[in-house]
Amino acid sequence: MKKFALVLALFVSVVAFAQQSLWTSAPSFSPQVNSDNSVTFRLMAPNATSVGVTGDFLPPKMVDTPYGRFAVPDTAALTKDEKGEWTFRSSVLAPELYYYSFIIDGVKVSDPSNVYQVRDVSTVMSIFIIGGGRADFYKVNSVPHGTLSRVWYDSPSLGMTRRISVYTPTGYEANTKMRYPVLYLLHGMGGDEEAWVALGRTVQILDNLIAQGKAVPMIVVMPNGNAIQEAAPGESSLGLVVPAYQMPKTMEGTFETSFPDIIKFVESRYRVIPDKRHRAIAGLSMGGFHSLHISRLNPDTFDYVGLFSAAIWQSEESTAKSPIYDNFEPTLKAQFAKHPRLYWIGIGKDDFLYKTNKDFRDILDRNGFKYTYYESAGGHIWRNWRIYLTEFVPLLFR
Amino acid sequence: MKKFALVLALFVSVVAFAQQSLWTSAPSFSPQVNSDNSVTFRLMAPNATSVGVTGDFLPPKMVDTPYGRFAVPDTAALTKDEKGEWTFRSSVLAPELYYYSFIIDGVKVSDPSNVYQVRDVSTVMSIFIIGGGRADFYKVNSVPHGTLSRVWYDSPSLGMTRRISVYTPTGYEANTKMRYPVLYLLHGMGGDEEAWVALGRTVQILDNLIAQGKAVPMIVVMPNGNAIQEAAPGESSLGLVVPAYQMPKTMEGTFETSFPDIIKFVESRYRVIPDKRHRAIAGLSMGGFHSLHISRLNPDTFDYVGLFSAAIWQSEESTAKSPIYDNFEPTLKAQFAKHPRLYWIGIGKDDFLYKTNKDFRDILDRNGFKYTYYESAGGHIWRNWRIYLTEFVPLLFR
Repeated sequence: MKKFALVLALFVSVVAFAQQSLWTSAPSFSPQVNSDNSVTFRLMAPNATSVGVTGDFLPPKMVDTPYGRFAVPDTAALTKDEKGEWTFRSSVLAPELYYYSFIIDGVKVSDPSNVYQVRDVSTVMSIFIIGGGRADFYKVNSVPHGTLSRVWYDSPSLGMTRRISVYTPTGYEANTKMRYPVLYLLHGMGGDEEAWVALGRTVQILDNLIAQGKAVPMIVVMPNGNAIQEAAPGESSLGLVVPAYQMPKTMEGTFETSFPDIIKFVESRYRVIPDKRHRAIAGLSMGGFHSLHISRLNPDTFDYVGLFSAAIWQSEESTAKSPIYDNFEPTLKAQFAKHPRLYWIGIGKDDFLYKTNKDFRDILDRNGFKYTYYESAGGHIWRNWRIYLTEFVPLLFR
Repeated sequence: MKKFALVLALFVSVVAFAQQSLWTSAPSFSPQVNSDNSVTFRLMAPNATSVGVTGDFLPPKMVDTPYGRFAVPDTAALTKDEKGEWTFRSSVLAPELYYYSFIIDGVKVSDPSNVYQVRDVSTVMSIFIIGGGRADFYKVNSVPHGTLSRVWYDSPSLGMTRRISVYTPTGYEANTKMRYPVLYLLHGMGGDEEAWVALGRTVQILDNLIAQGKAVPMIVVMPNGNAIQEAAPGESSLGLVVPAYQMPKTMEGTFETSFPDIIKFVESRYRVIPDKRHRAIAGLSMGGFHSLHISRLNPDTFDYVGLFSAAIWQSEESTAKSPIYDNFEPTLKAQFAKHPRLYWIGIGKDDFLYKTNKDFRDILDRNGFKYTYYESAGGHIWRNWRIYLTEFVPLLFR
C-alpha cells in the first residue's frame, strides 16, 4: 500500500481537473483578500479575449428602465499577464459579505477557483467576506453553535408535506427542561426555505448574537412562503427544476391562511413557550407582506413583528382577490389595540418600495400606532436584510 | 402598490443579470433531459471561440501517468448557431446522477444556466439526474422524508467542538418512545461532513429505501474524518478557505482513537439502541480505512462493517506511525471471533485500490473470516459509492 496518499491525490487531480491543460495549469488563488481589505481576483484563461468581474463590491451603476432608475452592479475589466492569468485588484472594501461573478468572453459565471457560492432564485454567485464591524456577525466564529435542521411538516390546509429550515440555539438539546421563544422568519418572492440560511446568514448571525449576549436564545423557523411548493427547487419530487421567480399562490392569501399549520407543527415538535409574548414574525419584501398580514389577522399571536423592505398591498393585477386583505385599517387597529411589544419597520433609502412604506407609516402615524423605524442606505438587497436581522433580533423577547 | 410583482421582477432581473447584454439575452435552458434520455447542453456565448463540455456522462478517456492508467472524463465540443448559442446533444444515457462542467475558451466552469452543483473537495461541478432503475433512489420522491441536521458535538479527545451531519428517519420525532439503530458513515480523503450528503445523496437514498421497505428506519451519522478540522471548509472559524485535498491527521490514528467521542455524543443525544447489534460503520476510501480499523479496535462495538473502495494499510510514507495499526491479523482475528453479522467489501474492477483489496481479502480467506463481496464496474468514484450504499443499507439491522 505504498504511496496511497500520493496516488490518490494524483487520481483525484486527474479526474477533477481533466481538461486540455491538464498537466500544466494550476487553479488561480481567487479571491484573495489583501491585508488592506482590497481583494484580488484571478483567473487563468490564456485563451480568453476578455475577462470582467461584476459584483456588489463595485460602486453601483444607475440604469434607467421603464419602471425607474435602478442601481446595478458595475463591471471591471481584469488584465492579462504573459502567462495568461487575468487579475483585478479592487479598492479597499468596507466589512461586508459580497457577491461577484466573472464574465468570460461575455458569459457570466462563478469564479471557478472559489467554491463558496450562494443562489438567489435562479442566479448563482461567488461570495467572499471582508471581516470587521457588523460583517463579523456573518462569519462562523469560535463560539457555541446552534443546530440547523431541514425538517418536513404536514400542512393540512395546503394538503401537502412541506420542507422547513429550523435553527435551534446552542444548549437546546442539552437543556431538556428549558422552553424557548420562536422567531418565524420569511423570505421574499422567488425565495424558499433556503434563502435566509444561505443569503441571510441566519445561523451565523444568531450564533454570534447569542454568544455575545446580544440576543436571547431562540428558535428560528424559516418556512417556504410559496404555497404551491413542497420545498425549495431541487428538494421536492419536481426534481432539478429551474427556479422560478414568480409563481402562483404567493401574495393572494393562501400562505397567510395556512400559516397556523406551521405554528401548530413547531409548537408540537419543539420545546417552545407557546404564547404571544414569545412569538415573533418577520420577513423581507414578500415575507414582510406576509408578516404584516399574518400578524394583523392573528392579533393575539405575535408580540414582535418585523417588516424588512416589506411589500404592503396586494398587487392590483392579482387575479385572486382574497378577502383577507379587506378591512385593512380596522384589523390593524385591532392589532395595535393589543399593544404589540415591537412593530419594527426597516427600509433602504433607495428601495423601490420606499414610497409604499412611507404611505404605510403615514397610516400608522395618523392612527397613533407605535412602531420602530430603521432607515438604511441602499435598496432592495440582501445586504440590508442581513443588517435588519442583526438590528431586529436583539430586540426580541426582552 | 401597482405592479408590485412586475417591478420587483424587473428589479431582480436587473440586479441578477446585469451585464453588457442585459436587455437582449436570456439564459439558455440547460441541461435539458430529452424524452429519449439524451441530454442537450446549451450556452449563450456569442463572443466565445470554443465551448466544450466534460463530464462522466461521456465515455471515459484513458490517460497514462507515472502511477498507471486512469480513466478521466472526455470532452465534447459544442457547436454555435447564428444567434451565438452553443449546443451539444449527448448519446442516450443510462439512469445515473451525472457531473459535468463547461470549458469556455479554455476555462472550466459550472453551467451558468444550472443552479444544481456539488463540491468534491475543491472542485465544483454541475449535476443532472437521469431517472429510472437505481438512480430513482437518488431523486427526491413523494415519500415520507427524514430530517437532516448539522449539529456540533464535543470531542474531548481532540479538544474541539466539531460539526456533524445527522439523518433521522421519518417518524423519529413523532415516535418518541421508539429507539433506533445507527449507521456511522465516513467520507474519503479531502471530504468532510458534507460529502455523503451532497455527493452521496444519503438523505434521498435512505428516504427511498425506507419508504419502499427495503431498509429499516435508522439514524445515519456522517462525521468529519479529518481530525484537524472542526468542520467542513467554510463552516468553521477558519473562514472561506480553499478546501485542501491532503491534510495532517487523517490516516495516522487520531481520528480512530477519537471516534468513541462521536458514539458517546450520538448515544446521549439521540434515541438509539446502544448495542453492537444496532451499530454499523461504513466508509469510502479513507473512510473505509477508518471503518476497518475502528471496527477492528473495538470488536464489541459494531455488528455491521462496510468497506467501500477502502484503503487498507497506512501509507509507508506516513510520518506518524501509530501503534493502532500494529497487530493487524491478531486483532482482526479477535474481531471475527465475535462473528460480526456483516462484513461487507465493495470495490470497482478499475479501482486503483483493487489489488490492495484483493490482498486484504486473501487474508480474510486464509483465516476463514466470512465477508460479503460486491464487485462493480468502474473505479474510485462516487457513482460506485452511491451504488454500494444502496446495496449495503438494506442488509443492516435485520
